[in-house]
Amino acid sequence: MSNEINSNDLLSLCRRRGFVWPSFELYGGVAGMFDYGPLGSNMRNNIVEVWRDIYRGREGFIEIDSETVNPREVFKASGHVDEFADLVTYCTKCESAFRADHLVKEFFDNPDVLSPKELDDAFVKFDVKCPECGGKLGLVEEFNLMFKTTIGPGSSRVGYLRPETAQGIFVNYLNLYRYNREKLPLGVIQTGRGYRNEISPRQGMIRMREFNMMEVELFVDPEDKGWSRFHEIENDPITLVPNTGTEAVTMTVGEAVSKGIIANKVLAYFVYTTQQLLVRLGVDQKRLRFRQHLRDEMAHYAMDCWDAEVLLSFGWIEVTGIADRGCWDLSRHAEFSGTELTHFKKFDEPEERETDKVKAKHKALGPRFKDKAKSIAEMMEAKRPSDIRDGKLALKVGDEEVILDGEFFEVVRVREKISGERVIPHVIEPSHGLDRIFYSVLEHAYTYDKKEDYTVLRLAPEIAPIKVGIFPLMEKDGLDALASDIYKKVHSPSMEAYYDGSGTIGKRYARMDEIGTPWCITVDYESLEGPSKGTVTIRDRNTTAQKRIRADSVQEALRSLLSGRRFEDL
Amino acid sequence: MSNEINSNDLLSLCRRRGFVWPSFELYGGVAGMFDYGPLGSNMRNNIVEVWRDIYRGREGFIEIDSETVNPREVFKASGHVDEFADLVTYCTKCESAFRADHLVKEFFDNPDVLSPKELDDAFVKFDVKCPECGGKLGLVEEFNLMFKTTIGPGSSRVGYLRPETAQGIFVNYLNLYRYNREKLPLGVIQTGRGYRNEISPRQGMIRMREFNMMEVELFVDPEDKGWSRFHEIENDPITLVPNTGTEAVTMTVGEAVSKGIIANKVLAYFVYTTQQLLVRLGVDQKRLRFRQHLRDEMAHYAMDCWDAEVLLSFGWIEVTGIADRGCWDLSRHAEFSGTELTHFKKFDEPEERETDKVKAKHKALGPRFKDKAKSIAEMMEAKRPSDIRDGKLALKVGDEEVILDGEFFEVVRVREKISGERVIPHVIEPSHGLDRIFYSVLEHAYTYDKKEDYTVLRLAPEIAPIKVGIFPLMEKDGLDALASDIYKKVHSPSMEAYYDGSGTIGKRYARMDEIGTPWCITVDYESLEGPSKGTVTIRDRNTTAQKRIRADSVQEALRSLLSGRRFEDL
Repeated sequence: MSNEINSNDLLSLCRRRGFVWPSFELYGGVAGMFDYGPLGSNMRNNIVEVWRDIYRGREGFIEIDSETVNPREVFKASGHVDEFADLVTYCTKCESAFRADHLVKEFFDNPDVLSPKELDDAFVKFDVKCPECGGKLGLVEEFNLMFKTTIGPGSSRVGYLRPETAQGIFVNYLNLYRYNREKLPLGVIQTGRGYRNEISPRQGMIRMREFNMMEVELFVDPEDKGWSRFHEIENDPITLVPNTGTEAVTMTVGEAVSKGIIANKVLAYFVYTTQQLLVRLGVDQKRLRFRQHLRDEMAHYAMDCWDAEVLLSFGWIEVTGIADRGCWDLSRHAEFSGTELTHFKKFDEPEERETDKVKAKHKALGPRFKDKAKSIAEMMEAKRPSDIRDGKLALKVGDEEVILDGEFFEVVRVREKISGERVIPHVIEPSHGLDRIFYSVLEHAYTYDKKEDYTVLRLAPEIAPIKVGIFPLMEKDGLDALASDIYKKVHSPSMEAYYDGSGTIGKRYARMDEIGTPWCITVDYESLEGPSKGTVTIRDRNTTAQKRIRADSVQEALRSLLSGRRFEDL
Repeated sequence: MSNEINSNDLLSLCRRRGFVWPSFELYGGVAGMFDYGPLGSNMRNNIVEVWRDIYRGREGFIEIDSETVNPREVFKASGHVDEFADLVTYCTKCESAFRADHLVKEFFDNPDVLSPKELDDAFVKFDVKCPECGGKLGLVEEFNLMFKTTIGPGSSRVGYLRPETAQGIFVNYLNLYRYNREKLPLGVIQTGRGYRNEISPRQGMIRMREFNMMEVELFVDPEDKGWSRFHEIENDPITLVPNTGTEAVTMTVGEAVSKGIIANKVLAYFVYTTQQLLVRLGVDQKRLRFRQHLRDEMAHYAMDCWDAEVLLSFGWIEVTGIADRGCWDLSRHAEFSGTELTHFKKFDEPEERETDKVKAKHKALGPRFKDKAKSIAEMMEAKRPSDIRDGKLALKVGDEEVILDGEFFEVVRVREKISGERVIPHVIEPSHGLDRIFYSVLEHAYTYDKKEDYTVLRLAPEIAPIKVGIFPLMEKDGLDALASDIYKKVHSPSMEAYYDGSGTIGKRYARMDEIGTPWCITVDYESLEGPSKGTVTIRDRNTTAQKRIRADSVQEALRSLLSGRRFEDL
């Protein structure tokens, strides 16, 4: 399967027309960084709004916005400090840096699994030299991909730019859980910057050092992986590449679950939701598939993981990952912060259970702690056996830490009626690469007619950065005044209009087609007098069909088209 | 003038209800960092949409989104590498860091103008010790407030987190100018993160290390500081504190310009636009003023500068700066990048002018450069006399740099018809601190009735994070089903609804009033049968007035209220 789009043509269009610009060109540029121009910025915001419409609107999830600079503790717990690294080699002659695995990719199927030692050996065996100057390559070492900084003066507190927005949700779990009135499921979304200090980024917008994400973290009861709306979509088809083979198979979402291909219903529901999102944004469903991670590719804690892959001129590219992350994230932060991050799951009926409890030895406490003994006893009995470390319990009494050994407490087995239990929620995570989705939508919308030398971006109206071009046939005789009136009435951030009075009408249509504007309005002499007085022409991008409508109904017509009305039915 | 709001009460409400949470509390917190919870995130997005409506909608400006990590060159040119610093002192005993000027504020009126030496002397003179441990303070030194990092491996390229979003617009000037079809005025807006590595931030959301901005950079013809819509607002009043005194005076915008108080019309227009924005967001106009920078407070390049100040429980706090920055920004980037950043200003009629031009000496060039002589001559003559450095001209011939001295060219005075000239645009910059505005809006909306122990946030409907609470009187007998139907029909990201079925109706109203929800819908038994069948109650937050409306008209009613219809007219 191949794809005829030339990504250079598209990137050149993006630059020329103001979708995306390589950053800092004034100062020689920085690889892997892009600025969103006026069209790109609008279009990206429109994508975010569709995502919000699905997650906040349809699903009722809540949205937060957390900080991009995080202290080291967060990423120590998440594992990024220790494991978020690529292997680098520096040329001993010209000092250029390279991703070591990229230099041997012609000799191995999976060069990214090689160790530093294996890569060093491979350089020797295959006589790999510096691609820049032919110099000898230095020893391969790890390079952590987080941008590092320090918070406050004195270089005392190390901070990192977040590699994902997800951690900001996890560390706020208790706040979010309380906001949700201590109920599950708890769905939280966040969009914003992520950072990855790539060694030598290539592939345009596919691999960026500073990128944009749309992440969803859904906390669910570990014993209930169903989803209330699953029945609505269980008979809909989806194209999967399960990790038992390499073939794509199309089946219903229900089948995928009942055959055990997707681990559970809630995960399957959000795999399918991702398909809905991407297709609504304009990804061609025939060039979209969901590939299951191979067992050794999956994070060790993940219970199941699927990548939404889109066929682009670069090949199949992952744009979204949808994973059942189990209890990993909350467990780690609980462990590293010493704070319980759980859900209290009420039983339908209270149950009688045998449990171990900490019991205070009042006789020992009294003489030692005097009038504080009672409150210390209470604090001890609020602890659990699992809080005992090396036979000792640590309590905070006022500002002071008091360490108590077995002289002051015992662990006893009791039978008691309990109303529920604490469980660590599991996390379902659909994590979207916003820039990759943005780029995929552009590639799939891009059509170039070589014979006519004509480009059209067939963007979905709700995504198009400009909704309507407004043209006076000539900038005189009152045509411009009427066009300008219409522009003023129509134009707003949610109905972005573009007034254009220069060049032939054909050229102006072409300019709008090239940036994906779905409709154009033209004011001509018939608008001013004669039987069609008071009407203007509206043109449809995809069909180039034209109609006359009343000038004072333009706003309403555009609004209804944007809500999905067909041009034919106008 | 004072203010009865207790900022601690408000911050406690913000935390409890999910507007704002101090960041990283799980790990002990980081001063000067806050996460936006579900309500805060919605409300902040709503504020951004109003700003967009004014700048993108009404003014037709364009929006971009540029990178937050920038290479050093950008901030070398902007002056931040050399001048964006505070003075710090570290305790020699406990190593705590302090802003040096804060430690002597009781002894000086303007401690922030003191030099490191003067501060060292003041510590001795006034016997200032470490506020934490009483230790001796170390020598005062400069601390650059930008977060520093490195881009790519090998620590080779220094980068900083941007202290403002503005530079991302300036370095894209050429792209933006082309997008605007090489016309002025060119208005560009950007919202996003800014960073300031404060020494020891206090004052809650007023001084944040990671903050959010809404910036506007308007490029204008330096010889035309008018504004086409100035006449629309010139008779409207504004409260100013000119730098000729300390008194606030209220006058019309037109007077402020004609009396020479505000430097020019375009600046005055955007000072007034800032007032419109802030008042529309909910800032109390009686607690808003515009203070002109004192001559020695103004950046040396600024032609005029005004701060929008809001009276908060902290005193008068700057939330926005509106400056005429002259040609400073583009001149600096032109100088540091060696790229011309200008506007070609066409004359109405070509003008005959005397100018100095570089003229090639062909006789000397020929023998020396052979077949390249002609193209070198052309390149030389494209240069200007101002490009000559130390009597020499540098040209790039292919990959090679060729330095030519006076043997090869001369400067001659010529008369010629020219169609226009290149000018460096001036920049008008309304720069908004989004978090401070967010906080100001909350303080001015906050009302607490001590007697009733009742809190109401009187947020403007378009700003309120949740637009409508939807309640079944009881969660049974089909009341819940109807309420749930209404919720599903109404709820969307732009009409955020909150379903609440628990507690008394009074408590549910109170919960909504406390977070500023303007309307509530209650489904009761009358909704299901009897003469009022098919109707529900709608309640107005500000008046607590209630009405019955048809259940199937709720969506339309809410939409019209949100567009400004009065509750009385419903």
